[in-house]
Amino acid sequence: MTTLVRNAWYVAAWSTEIDDELRRFVILGDPVLLFRRTDGRVAALEDVCPHRQLPLSMGKRIGDTVQCGYHGLTFDTDGKCVRVPGQDRIPLSACVDAYPIEERSGIVWIWMGEPERANPDDIFDLPQFHDDSWHMHHGGALHIESNYLNVAENLVDPAHVSFVHETTLGNSASENVPVHVSTEGEEIIAWRWIRDSEPIGFFKAFGGFTGNVDRWHYYHLRLPCTAYIDFGSADATREIAEDDRDSGTRILALHFMTPVTETYTIDRWMHLRNTAVGSDEASDKMDALFEIAFGEDKEILEAVHIEEQRPRKRRPIRLAIDHGPMVYRKRIAEMLERERTDDASAPTNGAYVIHS
Amino acid sequence: MTTLVRNAWYVAAWSTEIDDELRRFVILGDPVLLFRRTDGRVAALEDVCPHRQLPLSMGKRIGDTVQCGYHGLTFDTDGKCVRVPGQDRIPLSACVDAYPIEERSGIVWIWMGEPERANPDDIFDLPQFHDDSWHMHHGGALHIESNYLNVAENLVDPAHVSFVHETTLGNSASENVPVHVSTEGEEIIAWRWIRDSEPIGFFKAFGGFTGNVDRWHYYHLRLPCTAYIDFGSADATREIAEDDRDSGTRILALHFMTPVTETYTIDRWMHLRNTAVGSDEASDKMDALFEIAFGEDKEILEAVHIEEQRPRKRRPIRLAIDHGPMVYRKRIAEMLERERTDDASAPTNGAYVIHS
Amino acid sequence: MTTLVRNAWYVAAWSTEIDDELRRFVILGDPVLLFRRTDGRVAALEDVCPHRQLPLSMGKRIGDTVQCGYHGLTFDTDGKCVRVPGQDRIPLSACVDAYPIEERSGIVWIWMGEPERANPDDIFDLPQFHDDSWHMHHGGALHIESNYLNVAENLVDPAHVSFVHETTLGNSASENVPVHVSTEGEEIIAWRWIRDSEPIGFFKAFGGFTGNVDRWHYYHLRLPCTAYIDFGSADATREIAEDDRDSGTRILALHFMTPVTETYTIDRWMHLRNTAVGSDEASDKMDALFEIAFGEDKEILEAVHIEEQRPRKRRPIRLAIDHGPMVYRKRIAEMLERERTDDASAPTNGAYVIHS
Repeated sequence: MTTLVRNAWYVAAWSTEIDDELRRFVILGDPVLLFRRTDGRVAALEDVCPHRQLPLSMGKRIGDTVQCGYHGLTFDTDGKCVRVPGQDRIPLSACVDAYPIEERSGIVWIWMGEPERANPDDIFDLPQFHDDSWHMHHGGALHIESNYLNVAENLVDPAHVSFVHETTLGNSASENVPVHVSTEGEEIIAWRWIRDSEPIGFFKAFGGFTGNVDRWHYYHLRLPCTAYIDFGSADATREIAEDDRDSGTRILALHFMTPVTETYTIDRWMHLRNTAVGSDEASDKMDALFEIAFGEDKEILEAVHIEEQRPRKRRPIRLAIDHGPMVYRKRIAEMLERERTDDASAPTNGAYVIHS
Repeated sequence: MTTLVRNAWYVAAWSTEIDDELRRFVILGDPVLLFRRTDGRVAALEDVCPHRQLPLSMGKRIGDTVQCGYHGLTFDTDGKCVRVPGQDRIPLSACVDAYPIEERSGIVWIWMGEPERANPDDIFDLPQFHDDSWHMHHGGALHIESNYLNVAENLVDPAHVSFVHETTLGNSASENVPVHVSTEGEEIIAWRWIRDSEPIGFFKAFGGFTGNVDRWHYYHLRLPCTAYIDFGSADATREIAEDDRDSGTRILALHFMTPVTETYTIDRWMHLRNTAVGSDEASDKMDALFEIAFGEDKEILEAVHIEEQRPRKRRPIRLAIDHGPMVYRKRIAEMLERERTDDASAPTNGAYVIHS
Repeated sequence: MTTLVRNAWYVAAWSTEIDDELRRFVILGDPVLLFRRTDGRVAALEDVCPHRQLPLSMGKRIGDTVQCGYHGLTFDTDGKCVRVPGQDRIPLSACVDAYPIEERSGIVWIWMGEPERANPDDIFDLPQFHDDSWHMHHGGALHIESNYLNVAENLVDPAHVSFVHETTLGNSASENVPVHVSTEGEEIIAWRWIRDSEPIGFFKAFGGFTGNVDRWHYYHLRLPCTAYIDFGSADATREIAEDDRDSGTRILALHFMTPVTETYTIDRWMHLRNTAVGSDEASDKMDALFEIAFGEDKEILEAVHIEEQRPRKRRPIRLAIDHGPMVYRKRIAEMLERERTDDASAPTNGAYVIHS
């Protein structure tokens, strides 16, 4: 049974990944052709000719149309066939899907579900995207051979940083600090403060802290596939309030997960920060630290994915730190159940997708 | 359900591929051992010992017998076991299949079906094989990761050359010229003439034409797995008749498809030509051009094969240019149905093997 | 249906393979973590955390406990969870399997079945392990992509050496010498003497024989996965009795097969010899000869395993030399049937596992 939610906006690519060339992406298992039209907008078509199934991305552009590389059938950016060489009549069924696209803040969003349900107002946004006192920096794309649910739950799980990211995002000071979890609409939030302790590697290297700090981690996981982690530090002697985080060094680390298939996920990551605004050097430094940390996550998540293919010998155990991930999997299960029954008003107490 | 027709002659190899060594081939999914006997004839045995299933090709020749490399069971070229080391009695069931073989014009033909139905008179032949005014040149073997039906239908499809082989076998002049289709016995023929147009790359490079030409393409696809393409050009000012093709530069490009498995096909290609007879330089030049064109086919066919593994979202569309391929798939479906019901006189209106 | 017998002692590793590091092995399809405790004993745990299924081998040692690399759950060498970071209560179900281990003569034995049935008295032993007049030498580990049954039956099959190991362990003198088979408890023994013939390559290179010898091969296959081959030579003019083998040059070649999965087997091999005691040079020379021979076996066994995946066209034939292998497969089938029905007293006439 699929774990992929179709009626949602996904990140197809950074804006910089799309240009005049015909490029093939696979999203939710479906091949998608992306290119930039002559007017600059991004076009997205099903990447398979309805005649003999050649990917249209192997054909060529003729203006804003795409000509199949096998027999020359030509499609416009609405997916409508506009030419069949060798005959005048164009069959009514000669068309491919065109996907709704929105491009914002350097991010290309795609809607893979029922087109009539696509509402651009639902696209993820943060006030800091539009605030000049914050620096926005697009990072890389982490390819992970794992189902996306594992990747996502890792992003509502502050507890793992103490063990997975000992030298970057966590340290032993946080090992026993309990995690709080709450939900707000489509977001699950897991957070904790670690007060008056040694700064983690990230803020030693980047924030320049030397004495003890108050450190926070707020993991916001928005259904189904977007996360941002609000984390930062302030001098412990200041004893700042929880809602005064902007007075410290504060980072919003964003993760846009794109399920390629049930077993492969791309995590595009970027950040916003309230310090070193305009400094490319700071961005590069931060990228280097994130790349170490995300490499640590990738190693863990791929190993877990492999083990999940093996029949389990025992029931999984449930811990206090699993609260966020369990709520997430329950909510995803409900979304899938609604899509399966094609009933947007279905009750939200469907079967759980708990750790398999 | 298999797509492989067993009661037919297939090309196992060029004559030059077979010598004294034990060599393993896989044909219609079955392993076959081929070697040249001391009298020069080609022997073909099932390549698996009936004792512990070691391929006999891993053993060694002892005269015209083959000794298994595991326990020394020895088989003659009829597939009969003639020795079991350690015991005098040879079990009646100790044998392997021997396949009918015919070698003609440098081509080794094999019959993989019921031996009693093998009739050498059914082997593909052309008058030009035996005509000294024609030059015969054996080419290479194109390995294609695709079911053979895709490869075959490409060889009764003149329309694709305008798009797949723009620089070699086609050009835009032919894009909208309709294709005629007829059938003669076991052959499906699709053809068209492109009159008074620029010569294609092939005849620019090879035939030396500079002005406009009349160009023809006759695709003959003989069931199940042999094709020859009669194509050529003549000066357009001559306005030659359709049956006067020998007065132009005429080439017969042959393709012998050997299904290795349901997902892998070898296409051995050669040509006959009525010009530059005896010139190795011309053969090399033509090989080089064909290799470019066939590499283009391979790229298309393998991409189509991969897409065919994916569930289709919509019904395939049917175009006028599909007439030849559709007749071919229908006829193959009938052959398979007759083999399935083991009734050579079954009616010919069985289920279709249309594009999956 | 599984071919893997669980209630048996298997060789997990040579003693030299295990040290302070956390190392992952796969045995009978199950991941196993092995490491040497601070007191020198070997610990063996199920290599998967019961929380989120990360292999424990990706975590780290803290004293004699193992801390998971994902969320820090910590297990002792009995498999009991002793710490869950972030909470005081440890769930009762938070545990992993610990496997019985015995280390003897440089060999680490593991029991993968029901722990209460593990009896160290059942572990394979030979008097020569404890006899200073014999030299013991641990060899290498041969990785074979084949089900273990093929590997095992090869070790109760003296007939194959004439054909597979022509230059090392066999020669043509033995081709037609019949094989005797008997059973003693859990052992199947296949043997033959080849009297007054040229020495095989092994004893030419190693034993220094130049004239004719009497040569013996006794293949002892102990259920399910241990074999030792007693083979040697003596000057033919001496005409030694069958039970006077110690007066010749005698070698015990041991094979411990560890099924990794149904399709992959590790064969750890070693030897005992009654000559050149204490000579490392002799050990190296013998290793080199064995490595050639075992490479020959590997090539055969992997080819057979591949062919076994293909549907058979005909029933396998049975020969006199198959007696040992057939008894072995019948006995294994009975062991599997007893494990399947969970009844150690089941009759021994269950279904046969004959060559598939």
